[in-house]
Amino acid sequence: MLPTAVVRYLESHRKKHLAPLMEFIRFASVASAPDRADDCERAARWLVKYLRARGMKARVADVPGGRPNVLAELIVDRKKPTLLMYGHYDVQPAEPLNLWKTSPFEPVIKGGRIFARGASDDKGPIFAHLMAIEAWQKAGGGLPLNIKMFIEGEEEIGSPRVEPFVAKYADELAADAVLVSDSEFFSHGRPALTYAYRGLVCLELTVEGANQDCHSGRNGGVVANPIIALARLIAKMHDNSGRITLPGFYDDVAPLGDAERRAWKKLPFDEKALARSLGLKVLAGGEKGLPALERRWARPTLDCTGIRGGHIAEGPKTIIPARATVKLSSRIVANQNPNKIIAGYRKFVAKNLPAGFKFHIEQQTAGWPLLVPLDTPALAAAKDALVEAFGVKPVFIRNGASVPVTAYFQRILGINPVLMGLGLPDDGLHGPNEKFDLNQLYRGSVAAAAFINNFSKQQTKKKS
Amino acid sequence: MLPTAVVRYLESHRKKHLAPLMEFIRFASVASAPDRADDCERAARWLVKYLRARGMKARVADVPGGRPNVLAELIVDRKKPTLLMYGHYDVQPAEPLNLWKTSPFEPVIKGGRIFARGASDDKGPIFAHLMAIEAWQKAGGGLPLNIKMFIEGEEEIGSPRVEPFVAKYADELAADAVLVSDSEFFSHGRPALTYAYRGLVCLELTVEGANQDCHSGRNGGVVANPIIALARLIAKMHDNSGRITLPGFYDDVAPLGDAERRAWKKLPFDEKALARSLGLKVLAGGEKGLPALERRWARPTLDCTGIRGGHIAEGPKTIIPARATVKLSSRIVANQNPNKIIAGYRKFVAKNLPAGFKFHIEQQTAGWPLLVPLDTPALAAAKDALVEAFGVKPVFIRNGASVPVTAYFQRILGINPVLMGLGLPDDGLHGPNEKFDLNQLYRGSVAAAAFINNFSKQQTKKKS
Repeated sequence: MLPTAVVRYLESHRKKHLAPLMEFIRFASVASAPDRADDCERAARWLVKYLRARGMKARVADVPGGRPNVLAELIVDRKKPTLLMYGHYDVQPAEPLNLWKTSPFEPVIKGGRIFARGASDDKGPIFAHLMAIEAWQKAGGGLPLNIKMFIEGEEEIGSPRVEPFVAKYADELAADAVLVSDSEFFSHGRPALTYAYRGLVCLELTVEGANQDCHSGRNGGVVANPIIALARLIAKMHDNSGRITLPGFYDDVAPLGDAERRAWKKLPFDEKALARSLGLKVLAGGEKGLPALERRWARPTLDCTGIRGGHIAEGPKTIIPARATVKLSSRIVANQNPNKIIAGYRKFVAKNLPAGFKFHIEQQTAGWPLLVPLDTPALAAAKDALVEAFGVKPVFIRNGASVPVTAYFQRILGINPVLMGLGLPDDGLHGPNEKFDLNQLYRGSVAAAAFINNFSKQQTKKKS
Repeated sequence: MLPTAVVRYLESHRKKHLAPLMEFIRFASVASAPDRADDCERAARWLVKYLRARGMKARVADVPGGRPNVLAELIVDRKKPTLLMYGHYDVQPAEPLNLWKTSPFEPVIKGGRIFARGASDDKGPIFAHLMAIEAWQKAGGGLPLNIKMFIEGEEEIGSPRVEPFVAKYADELAADAVLVSDSEFFSHGRPALTYAYRGLVCLELTVEGANQDCHSGRNGGVVANPIIALARLIAKMHDNSGRITLPGFYDDVAPLGDAERRAWKKLPFDEKALARSLGLKVLAGGEKGLPALERRWARPTLDCTGIRGGHIAEGPKTIIPARATVKLSSRIVANQNPNKIIAGYRKFVAKNLPAGFKFHIEQQTAGWPLLVPLDTPALAAAKDALVEAFGVKPVFIRNGASVPVTAYFQRILGINPVLMGLGLPDDGLHGPNEKFDLNQLYRGSVAAAAFINNFSKQQTKKKS
């Protein structure tokens, strides 16, 4: 059990910790906005200063062509286990601003929640970690293990440069466990440990016909239409049962085990409520005949995230366009290799595009899936920590989304990350009026402190 | 034969006629540009002044919500036949300006051609008509028939208000024949009489899924994708042989007669050269197994002229979009009814859209096709006039494009229009560096004067 003094410290500092968190949130550290590059820099430097003031060795680590990351460490004893804590200081754009009830980068506390962009994703949860460290330092007699921190600056743009970064700093990031704050509860009052993310492949496919837009009267019925050719390709990418038809697409998919399938059936997942919240009568995406959670968590997808071609302004324009482009995106699951999936797309298009058209494919994202074994000691330490902090056993869930860095922790550092998130599903991540519950912040800091305790004891016992 | 004095007058005035034509061309009368409304007004008023100076009763006829038309008449004798001459003073936008070698609204004469927007489409050809009238007045002893003129101001935006206009002014436009300058030669040195245009249906189809763009990680495999649904609809609109599958789509199509098919085979149409000019190896549009000219002139089409949905800016964005929209356009042929075609689109989408999606269709254009019998006296008069003016027999051709007003001459006024165009296929209509050959202008004025002669004699003979 976590020393009472640590819990008391966190409890008595609930209010005091809000001031620096509010300061941190005020940086409009939007990684996707070129004119916010300075805000990202300033947020990173603010973090370094904050961490140094707490006795950590911290620095801004430049990322060529991108936003910097923050690296820090506090080595109490080389013989003790080391915990790497991960979060990201960059945030989603706040637009559309007219949907916000308060200013997105001027945090407001109301009804026990902080409203601001980044409050829940991921600045609040990062702070829960920082509070836990401080509580151990000030009230626990010092940290029982070594701490490293990796606070990323490009998570919200898909971490395009994080793979080489982790590879380059592998020694500096080496640890016995990674604790990731960037995930979430299953529902209100129901903590979760996430043990899988899907990987993500994004590409842009362009189909080209004539060398110029041409007159649809003179050429209609003579010149073939690239929008139609593209539509026919897209249509062929799924069969009528919703299965994806790219060559070899499902070859490497790890089948879902009976234990997991049974566990998921017990989860209080309300399919109808989700459909309703999206204005839908039915959740018709994915493969027919499979439960919604299985389709979301354990099955790969193929979606079109954007399409454009020809005249897209108002009114008619009588042309046969020269080209059309679709943005394609696949979420992939355990065992699948993003590079093989991209090769499958290329093969499919080369085979199915009718004569008379050219195509090119621009690869934009190739992120690996994550699947963590359910029996790691770190996960057990996290489970106990959540029970201590929230009084409820966590559920073990997968997540259909992608946090690319988690796969690199596993693939490059050889560590199965622990995804002990604090956000709630209705926090409005990526949307307007994002919020973070102050109770999640406080209890989350207790959970992080408890994890530090549990993991250090477990590892020390193992060594002895 | 045309009186020699008339030909001589036109010959001797070749240069003199250029000055007012240049003035006319200088009006940037772009109907689609709201900030060019004044230029359209001024062009219309300039025409009225010009026509009045030549003894015609002329006026600007307002078009509610649109650009005005010009109406004029010169009644020499109520007992004589009446010829309605049609053209349009509005022009296509000149953009992109950087592709022009000279300023589009500052006409330049070089190598025997006038370079300017509207030179060929349709200001030059209108002027050939005006020159013919003047020659008859000044050198032919007065016009041998009554002249009416209808010079439209919205042809280049698809004549959206021309149907009610023709209906409203039906009495004022009543005539024994209509001579239309807005069509073209088959090729250099080969005049043509166009006896058919295709009709035009334009609509916008939107498919809607969830009530908001949603996260493709959370919802991929769960929420169905409207871009994919739309692509599958579009893909189904043609079968593998290129035939359109909308219900009843081909029901009313007038089959092509053997005589026409034989005549078209003799036309020096160079399919490979057309493909080459568009950077294509093959002209793969339309129904398989039919010759290119038949597909272009005598078969209806279904094209996508624009498509948009989801994230269309640069880079990836991981969403399942809420909606996707396609602009659909059908060229329709003789006997087809645009309203039935639109109904077919609606039925098709309602039947084939998968459950869980909504759709709506916005109708934008519904123009009728034109097919003129090949044995009208007016067409015979035109054929002789072209031989007189150009020394070559014209070919009889259809045109795959659409000039909406021509169908209303037939449907509302009951007149089969004569399409005796003067432009050359490489005049660059709608493109940069549009030009009009001065020889076409001069010989075109001779042809118009000869048509006036032939038609008046023919009609007078008929009555006597």
